[in-house]
Amino acid sequence: MRRRLQAACWFISVTIAVCASVHTQTADPLPSWNDGSVKQAIVVFVNTVTTANSKQFVSPAERIAVFDNDGTLWTEQPMYNQLAFALDRVKALAPAHPKWKTEMPFSAVLQDDQEAFDKSGEEGLGRVMFATHTGMTTDVFTNVVVEWITGARHPRFNRAYTDLVYQPMLELLAYLRANGFKTYIVSGGTAEFVRAWSERAYGIPPEQVIGTTFVTKFTWRDGQPVLMREADVDFVDDGAGKPEAIQKFIGRRPIFAVGNSDGDREMLEWTAGRAGAKFVALVHHTDAEREWAYDRSSHVGRLDKALDEAAAGNWAVIDIKRDWRRVFAFEAAN
Amino acid sequence: MRRRLQAACWFISVTIAVCASVHTQTADPLPSWNDGSVKQAIVVFVNTVTTANSKQFVSPAERIAVFDNDGTLWTEQPMYNQLAFALDRVKALAPAHPKWKTEMPFSAVLQDDQEAFDKSGEEGLGRVMFATHTGMTTDVFTNVVVEWITGARHPRFNRAYTDLVYQPMLELLAYLRANGFKTYIVSGGTAEFVRAWSERAYGIPPEQVIGTTFVTKFTWRDGQPVLMREADVDFVDDGAGKPEAIQKFIGRRPIFAVGNSDGDREMLEWTAGRAGAKFVALVHHTDAEREWAYDRSSHVGRLDKALDEAAAGNWAVIDIKRDWRRVFAFEAAN
Repeated sequence: MRRRLQAACWFISVTIAVCASVHTQTADPLPSWNDGSVKQAIVVFVNTVTTANSKQFVSPAERIAVFDNDGTLWTEQPMYNQLAFALDRVKALAPAHPKWKTEMPFSAVLQDDQEAFDKSGEEGLGRVMFATHTGMTTDVFTNVVVEWITGARHPRFNRAYTDLVYQPMLELLAYLRANGFKTYIVSGGTAEFVRAWSERAYGIPPEQVIGTTFVTKFTWRDGQPVLMREADVDFVDDGAGKPEAIQKFIGRRPIFAVGNSDGDREMLEWTAGRAGAKFVALVHHTDAEREWAYDRSSHVGRLDKALDEAAAGNWAVIDIKRDWRRVFAFEAAN
Repeated sequence: MRRRLQAACWFISVTIAVCASVHTQTADPLPSWNDGSVKQAIVVFVNTVTTANSKQFVSPAERIAVFDNDGTLWTEQPMYNQLAFALDRVKALAPAHPKWKTEMPFSAVLQDDQEAFDKSGEEGLGRVMFATHTGMTTDVFTNVVVEWITGARHPRFNRAYTDLVYQPMLELLAYLRANGFKTYIVSGGTAEFVRAWSERAYGIPPEQVIGTTFVTKFTWRDGQPVLMREADVDFVDDGAGKPEAIQKFIGRRPIFAVGNSDGDREMLEWTAGRAGAKFVALVHHTDAEREWAYDRSSHVGRLDKALDEAAAGNWAVIDIKRDWRRVFAFEAAN
């Protein structure tokens, strides 16, 4: 009986390849993308690196795809969503910190005085980040993020923040994974903020999320080992830090990279400089009606030097207005 | 035609589960382990966490297994293999550094004066490590390691170092992966040294190797982006650093952990402290005939406090003499 089953299994394993190929032919994998040069370039690239007899074939193990998060996979306006989380947390924690009523930058946050908060600059931002993101165990922090992201609503769309992931990018992530790619987030946001919801929102597990980190220390509390988040920055995953972190965490050079701001420039350069096949793209926010339109002079997600470099280096530019049939899943498809 | 193929594919996908279960029943997955309490505990644990209706079922995504490298997956005597690499590199690089003939600790290395080199202490070791592991691009370093590990021979066994991986641990890694575990190395050795050969030797890809790191900087050379390895330690992956790095790189708490020295203690504690099922083990080197016998007073891989803690905390102790039918693949099986 076992022998007969094994023979059947051999037959089946041969047939699986046929099934996979039938399956991939059944539907457009990128239905929220308008037909055009960008969509075509993506499909051609994926076909090229996955076709076994192609000169540019890339083994599945080397199919590393990296994505910035804010402004690339989900919206980053009118402020980074993680900053919205931090400001909400200041308000939630305020009863336990009566001094915050009169202490900058907390007083500005509690009074919704955006201008005063902005004036507090990097130092004020740092104080708010440390007060809301550190001084607790990793488990407690994750629970706080999960609770927030389940309940909070985006001010413009009155939707959960995880509804504001870009539908075309979800399709792109799924398409790449179906073709043997391993998809990573490489975010300037902090790793454990993103990890708390990345698997549910993007299908990207925590071990494939790279981000900015706080110093985290192993210690004991009440007879149990814990990891405590400390009020000290460990690593800033932005600019040159992105390719450095890719090397440190992945140890392979990506063949596919998408960003949307000057902070992603070095990650895109590192990918573009790879010998052999690669696909490098920028998301350009051009659609104020469905999302936002901003680039060179934006305070959030400034896209200036990288946009010039895209033109010079032949990187793809994903123009939201032109290339995306719909931006969010909750929109009616055209 | 497509419809008929799709129906066949549905049938096949249902049948694959049956095939997988037939396959896993065909043979002992751990043939190089002697029957005994440790082998039994491993098999019972794996069955428990993978049985869908078990109270201690763990979803595949959470099946994280972490392994120390030196002394846990391959031999670490008479010196760490990476140190053997560093000393060989000093000799290979010496013609370009004439001053090394009279400059400690390099002169000691060039004269094979182990005693004088040991006397140079941490500082001497650091100078040798920086001179041989940094000051080059990541690509160049990887090539140097690959070349060395292909040609170098271990002094006692006159075998390639990658022949000195433990056969029972290879079987354990494969057994865990066949049961949906993701296997990681968490090594005090440097990440990029291990990554250069870990996939070939253990089936563990670079992105699942965590280790000590040097500062690595993104920069441009001859019009190309490169990552330069600098003479500065970024992070030491030892002791409390191990659970801290596991959190940083993986973001999940392991359910399976194996080490062999006091440097692995906090990693094992972190795993042992998890709520729900976990398996925690120490490799105890007890077989001077086939490998080495050492523990509490060893200079390399000292196992003292962790051995006491294993007894107190009910961690498994893998006694090489007792538990391993063979140590290396090149031995004749009993």
